[in-house]
Amino acid sequence: MVRQVRAVRTRRALVRAAAEVFAEDGYALASLPVISRRAGVSTGALHFHFPSKDLLAREVEAAATAAVQRLVVREGAGGGGGLQLLVDVSGDLVAALAVDPVLRAGFELAGDPSRKSAEGPGRWWSEWVHGLLREAQGAGELARGVSPEAAAVAVVASVAGFGRLASRQRVRSSPRLVEQFWALLLPGLAAPSHRLPVLPGPRATGTDRTPR
Amino acid sequence: MVRQVRAVRTRRALVRAAAEVFAEDGYALASLPVISRRAGVSTGALHFHFPSKDLLAREVEAAATAAVQRLVVREGAGGGGGLQLLVDVSGDLVAALAVDPVLRAGFELAGDPSRKSAEGPGRWWSEWVHGLLREAQGAGELARGVSPEAAAVAVVASVAGFGRLASRQRVRSSPRLVEQFWALLLPGLAAPSHRLPVLPGPRATGTDRTPR
Repeated sequence: MVRQVRAVRTRRALVRAAAEVFAEDGYALASLPVISRRAGVSTGALHFHFPSKDLLAREVEAAATAAVQRLVVREGAGGGGGLQLLVDVSGDLVAALAVDPVLRAGFELAGDPSRKSAEGPGRWWSEWVHGLLREAQGAGELARGVSPEAAAVAVVASVAGFGRLASRQRVRSSPRLVEQFWALLLPGLAAPSHRLPVLPGPRATGTDRTPR
Repeated sequence: MVRQVRAVRTRRALVRAAAEVFAEDGYALASLPVISRRAGVSTGALHFHFPSKDLLAREVEAAATAAVQRLVVREGAGGGGGLQLLVDVSGDLVAALAVDPVLRAGFELAGDPSRKSAEGPGRWWSEWVHGLLREAQGAGELARGVSPEAAAVAVVASVAGFGRLASRQRVRSSPRLVEQFWALLLPGLAAPSHRLPVLPGPRATGTDRTPR
């Protein structure tokens, strides 16, 4: 039992160290000995848990995808319309990208030409945003003439941009920027009957959630 | 004279081949012999023009930055307000990203963790968009309460997103998507007195420019 707990902890440390090294050096140059040293485990333990760098990268991607899915589920439980959900989840995601190297690496591995993975969180997230906006259109939440496709590309790209800013800490006010982004986008995006009362949800700005 | 012309042509072929190989394999794994073969020149000629991979990458970045600057100068000559210029240039840039591997590689090298360059076109473009939106705010072109910072991040990230779509050819309608993006953004971004009559300029959709 103790051994199992230790194994889980070791895997987690390896995944986090791998995420950091992938972000710093890129997938191609990331070195397994550097990763195991950073995780504080032996190279033997690394090879026991992850026989190849590819498997380690897949684990980073799977963990990142699961983290994005948890944000969606958590916010989705609150009810509310599709656009409100999108506003809340995007704020949470930017906040999470600022602090979670595994989430960040999961997104960035897909854009690393030496990796070219289609299994990361980026694809799942992009499809979720596209689907949500198409559904919002069907539910009459979008302004007339709005293209859910163009809106989805803009939202996915902008969230990635705010996430990069947040993680570089060059702009510490990124949660505020995400709010301002939505204030900018919603007049053109939302049908007049679906303007949102609260933007974004409290969780997106990192404060405790109060009942709505 | 003939020799000079040939040298210019060889450099250009090498820069284009390098851009394609960087995009396919990433900077770290890009191989100089593969680049020279693709350019149809000897490895000796490659080393004569570019003694290192770093110098070749710098040339790709410089060529890409110059291409973006040319778009800005060309559209800027037409007069009109700052927002109209931004709409026109962004449409041109997405169209150019779809067809120009050097431009694309210039932007992507900065995001390649094995390269980490700060000299590519991305930085220049981002600073130009930020500056333009701050000036537009000063000139009263932006709606009240709009953050030029948040708008700039959204525009820079979205243009990159539309450019990636366009280059992958998964969505062939990317010029139309850029128009729809602006139709989405402008109601929140532009002051009511500065709503634009034409969105975007004809060049952005790839048709011939007619006098305005």
